[in-house]
Amino acid sequence: MRIVRFLLDGQSSYGLLTGNEIEALAGNPMNGISKTGRKQLIGDSRLLAPVQPSKVVCIGMNYSQHAAELGLDLPEEPTVFLKAPSAIVGPGASIVVPKQTKRVELEVELVVVIGKEARRVRKDEADDYIFGYTIANDVTARDLQFEDQQWARSKSFDSFCPIGPWIETDWQPQNQRLESRVDGSVRQADTIDRMIHSVPEIVAYVSENMTLLPGDVILTGTPAGISEIRSGELVECQIDGLGTLLNQVS
Amino acid sequence: MRIVRFLLDGQSSYGLLTGNEIEALAGNPMNGISKTGRKQLIGDSRLLAPVQPSKVVCIGMNYSQHAAELGLDLPEEPTVFLKAPSAIVGPGASIVVPKQTKRVELEVELVVVIGKEARRVRKDEADDYIFGYTIANDVTARDLQFEDQQWARSKSFDSFCPIGPWIETDWQPQNQRLESRVDGSVRQADTIDRMIHSVPEIVAYVSENMTLLPGDVILTGTPAGISEIRSGELVECQIDGLGTLLNQVS
Repeated sequence: MRIVRFLLDGQSSYGLLTGNEIEALAGNPMNGISKTGRKQLIGDSRLLAPVQPSKVVCIGMNYSQHAAELGLDLPEEPTVFLKAPSAIVGPGASIVVPKQTKRVELEVELVVVIGKEARRVRKDEADDYIFGYTIANDVTARDLQFEDQQWARSKSFDSFCPIGPWIETDWQPQNQRLESRVDGSVRQADTIDRMIHSVPEIVAYVSENMTLLPGDVILTGTPAGISEIRSGELVECQIDGLGTLLNQVS
Repeated sequence: MRIVRFLLDGQSSYGLLTGNEIEALAGNPMNGISKTGRKQLIGDSRLLAPVQPSKVVCIGMNYSQHAAELGLDLPEEPTVFLKAPSAIVGPGASIVVPKQTKRVELEVELVVVIGKEARRVRKDEADDYIFGYTIANDVTARDLQFEDQQWARSKSFDSFCPIGPWIETDWQPQNQRLESRVDGSVRQADTIDRMIHSVPEIVAYVSENMTLLPGDVILTGTPAGISEIRSGELVECQIDGLGTLLNQVS
């Protein structure tokens, strides 16, 4: 299933996307799929971020070449940090460059969407706790990231967490390709099997350290090739089988 | 006003505390106070954390002697980090020591509770955006804090963010005294006027960097004297005029 969130009569609603048609769902699909019969073409719809997490957990330096390009040592355990949920925007929304930074960069990432409360989940049962997958751009004020040491601020400006376009519930990471483009030119391109810590390892590790709630998201790290994005540019984050998350820098 | 959150017929409800009596409120008091007439003695009530924030923003090293005891340089700008909201527990709840850490420490902190959406608020108008004040214990796995570099994990274990006992809406920080005790013995004692960045400065700074939503909390840093807490110990965090937040380590 492809789960979207969209505006229906000015209100946020979840929906099931089939072809180019969205059927509105009643309530939160994580509690079960309940169709309403109301349909709307995706071309006539404004999509929102497909999930409203209580926390945005991120894994840093999960592709070795990316750690190298930042000049950071590769940690043995996953590096965990948090982005503020207020940074989330949907597909098509603008990424706003704040005046505090001189260098904003993109980071395409695979997102794990948690489907039920997860505490100390074993690797081999991680899949049972995953509702589906989507894409995020872990937008980062790179200059502030290094000035601050703690990464929360440089990664939590409003609009610094585009998520979407939808959640795909029947999809497996395996060796799928992820790519980011700026005005059509490729900036990052890698495959998910080159992650240092796999999705089941990440779900196990994070849930050992904090309880994950339904709707919580884990951003699983970005490959090498991060690069600056500037006002007016069109940013695309794509993962095979998950679609393309498109945002303009304003 | 003293605003509590408590269990009423097994459901979470906000309440107004007067003397030792809680009057249940309808809805969220940040949208206006609406009394229900239903009353319950505080002694018969289980208090919950008085707020359910969409994010827990923390200011690090905001008292110079604390930065010195950690061996950290004092930053010119406030150091911002985030704790996971899943770490929040109420007054009386247990602080659970996870097996990953060998050293858990307490940190008493003044908490600012945001009352309305705040973006780029000026210092001189910060007060208009503050709903009230309460107390938190920014419990920290000190060994992991330094191993990880990023502080999110070491400060986000379940139960590592006790908040309470209530929100006081008619109170000003000024030179109020804050203190922490373990089994009755004083560990931290300082006054709020010794903060490096004052409450209005913090609200201005954080809201310049991310939008604060009603109910969001800012933990404003801890004074020197942090020390280990161990299973079985009783931890008290007290601020003059805000009461005492009491939690047992389990």
